[in-house]
Parts: sequence; structure tokens; C-alpha cells
Amino acid sequence: MAPRTLKIAAAQMGPVHLTSKRPETLSRMITLLQSASSLGAQLVLFPETAFTTFFPRHLIPSQELDTYFEHSDNLPDAENTKPLFDEAKKLGIDISVGFAERAEDGKGYNTSVYFSAKKGEVIAKYRKVHLPGTKEPFENPDAVNQLEKRYFEPGNLGFQAFRAPDLVEGAVKKGNGVEAALGKGDPVMGMMICNDRRWVEGWRIYGMQGVEVVLCGYNTAGFAPDLWGTRKVMTPEEAEKDAVFHHKLVMQGNSYMNSCFSVSAAKAGLEDGKYDLIGGSCITSPEGHVLAEAKGKGDEIVFAELDLEDCRQGKEKTFDFDRHRRIDQYGPITQQTGVVEPDLLE
Amino acid sequence: MAPRTLKIAAAQMGPVHLTSKRPETLSRMITLLQSASSLGAQLVLFPETAFTTFFPRHLIPSQELDTYFEHSDNLPDAENTKPLFDEAKKLGIDISVGFAERAEDGKGYNTSVYFSAKKGEVIAKYRKVHLPGTKEPFENPDAVNQLEKRYFEPGNLGFQAFRAPDLVEGAVKKGNGVEAALGKGDPVMGMMICNDRRWVEGWRIYGMQGVEVVLCGYNTAGFAPDLWGTRKVMTPEEAEKDAVFHHKLVMQGNSYMNSCFSVSAAKAGLEDGKYDLIGGSCITSPEGHVLAEAKGKGDEIVFAELDLEDCRQGKEKTFDFDRHRRIDQYGPITQQTGVVEPDLLE
Repeated sequence: MAPRTLKIAAAQMGPVHLTSKRPETLSRMITLLQSASSLGAQLVLFPETAFTTFFPRHLIPSQELDTYFEHSDNLPDAENTKPLFDEAKKLGIDISVGFAERAEDGKGYNTSVYFSAKKGEVIAKYRKVHLPGTKEPFENPDAVNQLEKRYFEPGNLGFQAFRAPDLVEGAVKKGNGVEAALGKGDPVMGMMICNDRRWVEGWRIYGMQGVEVVLCGYNTAGFAPDLWGTRKVMTPEEAEKDAVFHHKLVMQGNSYMNSCFSVSAAKAGLEDGKYDLIGGSCITSPEGHVLAEAKGKGDEIVFAELDLEDCRQGKEKTFDFDRHRRIDQYGPITQQTGVVEPDLLE
Repeated sequence: MAPRTLKIAAAQMGPVHLTSKRPETLSRMITLLQSASSLGAQLVLFPETAFTTFFPRHLIPSQELDTYFEHSDNLPDAENTKPLFDEAKKLGIDISVGFAERAEDGKGYNTSVYFSAKKGEVIAKYRKVHLPGTKEPFENPDAVNQLEKRYFEPGNLGFQAFRAPDLVEGAVKKGNGVEAALGKGDPVMGMMICNDRRWVEGWRIYGMQGVEVVLCGYNTAGFAPDLWGTRKVMTPEEAEKDAVFHHKLVMQGNSYMNSCFSVSAAKAGLEDGKYDLIGGSCITSPEGHVLAEAKGKGDEIVFAELDLEDCRQGKEKTFDFDRHRRIDQYGPITQQTGVVEPDLLE
């Protein structure tokens, strides 16, 4: 059986400010790509909204808003993003990167794409399904807004796994999800974005396609004043530690429960001079262990060599969905959105 | 607002052997109940198949099999189980306990019940949905069998949450799931058994009923010879450490992602003189932290006082299902059981 190993990297980025110039940001990303290349990486994941600050924390006048969006999803050819993809192609490294997408119909999405270096094109696109935050800004001027529901529509492309071509030697070109986990076929990949990683549904749908590697870029606040009145009083240091704990917990737990690797890449540090984002970019195994993680909160490559065979134990035994899942008992998951009185649940 | 605190205990049990006599086992359980009572516990959780060894590891002749099953689900009145419930009633402590159920139609289920001390009756019953293992024993005589699929039918009662009466002062008698999390109503509880805890679907369905405490008894092997050929070679010590890690990971992760407490109670130690079961009984918080855990692998009480208000932060903000879940994107979860080639998933 041909080995199915994959050298993979998360490109954690330090802050990108409101005032940052795009060429400077692209230059940092290209430097990260080159660092990953020197380690032998075949695939590099960049954060959510990697090209800009995490602008949904601001109430931005509509005439300025479009400066934070890309106006084509064909990033490899668009002036503002092309240099990154040119470098990826030159180095022969696949990349996945998050950006704010302005669709042709004018709607905004929080999107990521997967670019195959050998094919020289984007082969998969994902739009964030689980948008956190609110549509309207908080009245309290000390509040840190999270206006994703204002600027973006919920993703409408589902959780579509895909095979990443030309990464694994000896891979057959066609199989099914189970065969992929049995050491055949190109690696099965899935993308999610930030808050999606806290929602088991997306992980499960990827798992049901035999996913072997889940990619997740994020911008996660380390501390925000409590406007909800329900959070235990924490210092900023405690809150940030807890946020990193939660991040790793969901990456580890969902990787384990779906027998897949995961790679997560943060935009980290003090953005716009004021808003702290956690680091914690990491790579987790199908057994739920952290294989590698970021040391700091700046630009940093987190690297690991994955043996995709490690997905087999879980997929064939404990988490053999075909033998163990009981969909006749799962109805409420897709029948209702919110919470219903126990006695009234169908 | 009246405080909604709940003093809760996991009664971890050391091994119960094939040769153990029921009066002796009941006596140990009563001693545990008394210990929990001395700590002020209002609710005590016992393990899966608490009254017997974990017999699905054995191929048992059909004429002997029924000695491991209870033949009534009215355990408080049945000779073989009554003393435990009498003591619970006397002490005024609710209990939840797992047992092998022989239903009236002759079918077997891996079941747990919830007994209200003040009501003096069983108020909820759960049948394990996710049965691990195989129907047929392994051919390899060194294999440790897991014949739950042989002895039990998959649970057919769904994941029905329920309110536990008379535990919380000042609780209003009616509300909805969200109100419960807002400090009204009797605590919303859910039961699961062992392997169920590794499956996100059950947790989610409880979460969608506003669950505040999930109860889970288990018998989990620390080490079994690898008959699947896929597991990394591990020493028994490494394997047991990993099994405890996985147990805690899923209890912590799923508690966090559904903003609920969880209590888990192991049957632990070397059962039938040969088969090692992990300990690790623990209580986790809605933020995913371990609040208390077992120190050893014998009979032991794990105790914590829970403030049910701690569920609010998650249920109202990050995991406000009504605002954030997107059931239009979740179809495959209930439409298919196993793994399907990415391109073919609907």
C-alpha cells in the first residue's frame, strides 16, 4: 500500500490593522508561504479574512465597506490577491485562505477557497454557515461588536468535502469515502471557518464524506467586556486562556469523533491597536491529540507531517458510522432550530 | 431569582464479577449512596449495567443469559434491585442507574432509569442507542468480545429530556427549555449510556431541549488486543491513558458545545479477574472544564455542587441555537447513515 502522508502547515498571522496596506499584508503571507515551503509543506492554511483586519468588529459606513471585500472569487487572477497565488503556484504548494466575498448578486459571504497549485486554480469554495454575533451594533459604547450577521449572509454551499489532487503519491483517482480512509484515493478535505468549529453538525457532515483533514481559519476574541451579564467575572488573561482552551477542545473533540485530522490557523494578537485575538493555531490527530501548535501570537508556521492512515482506526471501528449511527433516532436535529420544552419535542 | 444549585455525585464502582453475588453488590451500592448522602448529594448516578459484570464481553449460553438481565423495569419493586431504591427513598436522594432490561416482548435493551426519591417512582427511562461491538464473537480466542449488538436491541426511546422534580428550591413547575436555562423550572436532565457519549447526535438532541445535566454511566475497556490491525502499537498503560483521555475529551467537548453539565460514572478496575475497565468518572461544566474526577479505580464518590445558572452564558450567547443553527444545511445528518463519496453526497 502506497504511503499516504501529507506535509501540512497552518500559517498563523499576527494582526492586520484597519490601516494596513495590502502589499504589506501580501508580503507577510508570502514570507509565511516560503517558510512553510522550506519545511516541505504541501498545503498551507491561512486564517479567516486573512487579507484584512477582522472588520466585523466595526460599524463601517456602507461606502467604505467594500474596501474590505474581494469582488471576485477568482482570487488567483484578482489584483489584490494574485501575488499570493502566484507564489503558491511557483512553490508548488496548495493553499486555503479566507476572505470576505462580495458575490455577483451583491451579497456578502465569509468565504474560504482551496487552491490547487498543480491545477493552478481554485477547486473548492466554502461559505461560513455559522455566523456569530448580531446584525445591530450594541448600544453600549464599550461593547466589542461582532457584526458578521450584518455584513454576511449565512453560507449556502453546505459542507461539501472534496478531494485534493496531486498531493499523495500512488493515490487512485476514484474511490469512495471509506476507501479513502483505507489508503486509496486523493485526501478528502473539508473547510470550515472560525465559529463553525464549535458546531458539531458541520464536522459530522464532513465525517459522513470520509473527511481526512478539516481546515479551519479563525479570528477569535480573547476578551470582550461582558454585555450579557451571564459570564463569570474573569480577568483578560483568564478569559484568553479559556478561549484558547475552548478552541483546542472543539478541534480535538470533533477530530476524534469524526476520525480526522484538523488544521486551524488564527489571526492573532492586538488588531487595530485595541482588540485582542487569541493564537493557538494547531494541528490535531484523528485520536484527538494536538500534534503541533503555535508558540506565540505573531506570524508563525505550525507544521506537521500527517499519516492519513491514522484515520483508519476510528473510521473502521469506534466511529464506523454505517454500523453504529441510528438516524431513526436523530430527527430533531434537522427538524427544529432552537430549544423546545422537553415534553414537547417530537 | 432563587438559586438553582444541585449537589450531585457519580458513584464509581470497582469491578463486579461473574461470580459476584447480588446482595454483596447491592450492599456496595448502598454504601456509596450513604457516602454521597453524607456529602449532601441530592442525586447519585450509578454506572451502566451496575448490578452485574459487563457481561457482553462473554459469549454466554442462552439458558444462562437471563441471569444478567432484570425482568421488570419497575426496579424499585423488584426483589433483585429493591434495596437500593429503598435506601434512596429513605435518604431522600434521586438515583439514576444502568441495567440490562428484558422487555415484556422478550427483547433486550441496555437501559437506565431515573428514580425520584420524593415521588418514590421511576420518572424516566432511557435505552442505549449507540451499541458498540459485534453480533458474532471474534474467531481469535485472544480477542475481547463486545457483544452488545448480540444481546441488545438499539434503543427506541430517542433522547427524551425530562425535568427532575423537587431538587431545586423555588423552581416554577412549568416553563420551556430556554426558561429553564434562565433560572426557572425544574432542572432539565438527559440520560445516555457509555458509547452514546462519543456520538454528538444524542448530546445535540438533549441540547435542543435545554438540557442542564447529562448523566452517563459506562463500562469502558482500558486495553484490548488489536484485532483490527489499524491501531498504533501501544502498551496497556498507554492504551488506558488514551481511553481515559478520550472519555474526558467527549464529556468536556460535548458539555461545552451544548452548554450543560455532565456527570459520568464508571464501572472500573479488573473485572472477572482479567478485563480492565477505565475509571475517570467525572463531572464537567458547561464551559467544558472538569469540576471533579475519580482518583482511583474502585468504589468512589465523585461530588460537586452545580450552579445551574452557569448554563446561561453558553445557551444565551455562543450556543444560542435559535439564532445560530442552520438546519437547511444539515440534511445529510438524518438522511444517510454511513459514509458517501464526497461528490455523491446530496
